[in-house]
Amino acid sequence: MTDDKVTVIGLGSMGTAIAEAFIGAGHPTTVWNRTPYKAAPLTAKGAIHAEAIEDAVAASPLIITCLTTYEDTHRILEPAAAVLPGRTLVTLNSGSPAGAREMAAWAVTHAARYLDGAVKNVPSAVGASDTLIYYSGDKAVFDAYEPILKALGGDTVHLGDEIDLAALYEMAVGALLLPTLAGFFQGAAAIRARGLEAASMVRFTGKWLDMIKSLLPVYAREIDSGDYSDAASSVNLFLAGAAHDQDLARETNVDVAWLGPLNDLVRRAAEAGHGDHSISALTEVLSKPYQPTSPSG
Amino acid sequence: MTDDKVTVIGLGSMGTAIAEAFIGAGHPTTVWNRTPYKAAPLTAKGAIHAEAIEDAVAASPLIITCLTTYEDTHRILEPAAAVLPGRTLVTLNSGSPAGAREMAAWAVTHAARYLDGAVKNVPSAVGASDTLIYYSGDKAVFDAYEPILKALGGDTVHLGDEIDLAALYEMAVGALLLPTLAGFFQGAAAIRARGLEAASMVRFTGKWLDMIKSLLPVYAREIDSGDYSDAASSVNLFLAGAAHDQDLARETNVDVAWLGPLNDLVRRAAEAGHGDHSISALTEVLSKPYQPTSPSG
Repeated sequence: MTDDKVTVIGLGSMGTAIAEAFIGAGHPTTVWNRTPYKAAPLTAKGAIHAEAIEDAVAASPLIITCLTTYEDTHRILEPAAAVLPGRTLVTLNSGSPAGAREMAAWAVTHAARYLDGAVKNVPSAVGASDTLIYYSGDKAVFDAYEPILKALGGDTVHLGDEIDLAALYEMAVGALLLPTLAGFFQGAAAIRARGLEAASMVRFTGKWLDMIKSLLPVYAREIDSGDYSDAASSVNLFLAGAAHDQDLARETNVDVAWLGPLNDLVRRAAEAGHGDHSISALTEVLSKPYQPTSPSG
Repeated sequence: MTDDKVTVIGLGSMGTAIAEAFIGAGHPTTVWNRTPYKAAPLTAKGAIHAEAIEDAVAASPLIITCLTTYEDTHRILEPAAAVLPGRTLVTLNSGSPAGAREMAAWAVTHAARYLDGAVKNVPSAVGASDTLIYYSGDKAVFDAYEPILKALGGDTVHLGDEIDLAALYEMAVGALLLPTLAGFFQGAAAIRARGLEAASMVRFTGKWLDMIKSLLPVYAREIDSGDYSDAASSVNLFLAGAAHDQDLARETNVDVAWLGPLNDLVRRAAEAGHGDHSISALTEVLSKPYQPTSPSG
């Protein structure tokens, strides 16, 4: 690598954090945003502000986009297509695996090298030694830029050469965020209905998340082997627990309706013969409706 | 405290772990179970097996029950009511705050002292120095037995004198377990549909849970202050993300229908004017339908 210049396109809170991390690591950093005023705090720290997208792309061999969707990324980069050949594009937006594959096809058309990635943390964690960011795409391209990309997070991972793996993992891993938060907010509503503070739950919920984390390898083993018979917590146990949802609603005036379809999944798992099996057998029910054959086939 | 004997009633996986922790800590431990054969592994380790519930209760000043519900606990202890006066009962089942209050009334009737508690971890963690167990009820009773109860978990907490607080927190904190697991299982189904192993997600999901844990104090502060305006991740951002659920379903043949009502909550929050507010504003929507007045009133 002969050039450590980088360009960051899209200066939302994540893009801004990314540009700051590159500046902090000493990389000559060019920034671009649709609304230029967002560049000001970064130029104050040493960034170069390109007003035209063509100039932003032409400024560096490595172009990081931090826009909302792949569609936005296409649209914003299109006017700079002529200067893309030979450069490396890294997209850090959310989106589907199909979106990543289309983006890769577009990059090939413009003779750009391409990696897709996802930052698995909040903007304030960008640059920290244990912040996880994973990428997919050509390993040789990843290897070439890994030293620069590590400025964004010490736990920088290459998932594989298939370009859509980062988007796939982003969706798969990210899937528990909203359900988990909704569970916490529901608990907070219940605690507050009693005149107590949500803050009083934080330490307990934190430990509860640690407990859940400790179970993940067990559940993954059950799911990968298809052997759910050694149940630490069974489907039937969760089915019995579903009754408590209504108790919670009655005592604390909290809306638990969103848990209905979740409890239906548990019921379907029991009906499918998984009653005494581990709750991880829910994976089978979640895979079933659209896919009667083996999920790994 | 002149007597460190304990009795454990109910020898499921949690009750067995609890009895083992007491035996390990050197307490003379009497055990009882409806199906007596479950006592055998414990008597082999030094426990005394009482065949009759009256003998089990009469054996110790401290009686720990680890049964499924408060109703079970009532029913099983009823024949031993005559020997209950002066003893301390600690219930470690799941249930509603109302159930805990009824149990407390029953204990008063039989001149027993009473604490309600909940083990916030798996059976294999019972006895560890960082295992969280919280209790509610008379502080003087808690103080008297805390040294013995600490054998079950080093992080032993008294929530308050109100007897139903442990059940309330158990429901409030516990509420995120099934949604979180379902999110993980859904991701696992998606990953496996691609021919990859669920095990490959574990490290990433673990870090994702750490990230969520790091956000809890922020969300609690927003909820307790009612000020959702400084949004790190907004309701609208989650609303945009909801579109990806269908992408996930389409690409990986995973059933995402259970997320529908969850996305409806997010939509309702946006419609209620919380679009640019923090996702923690969901708490307001969850409190709303049954409770038009202030939740802390």
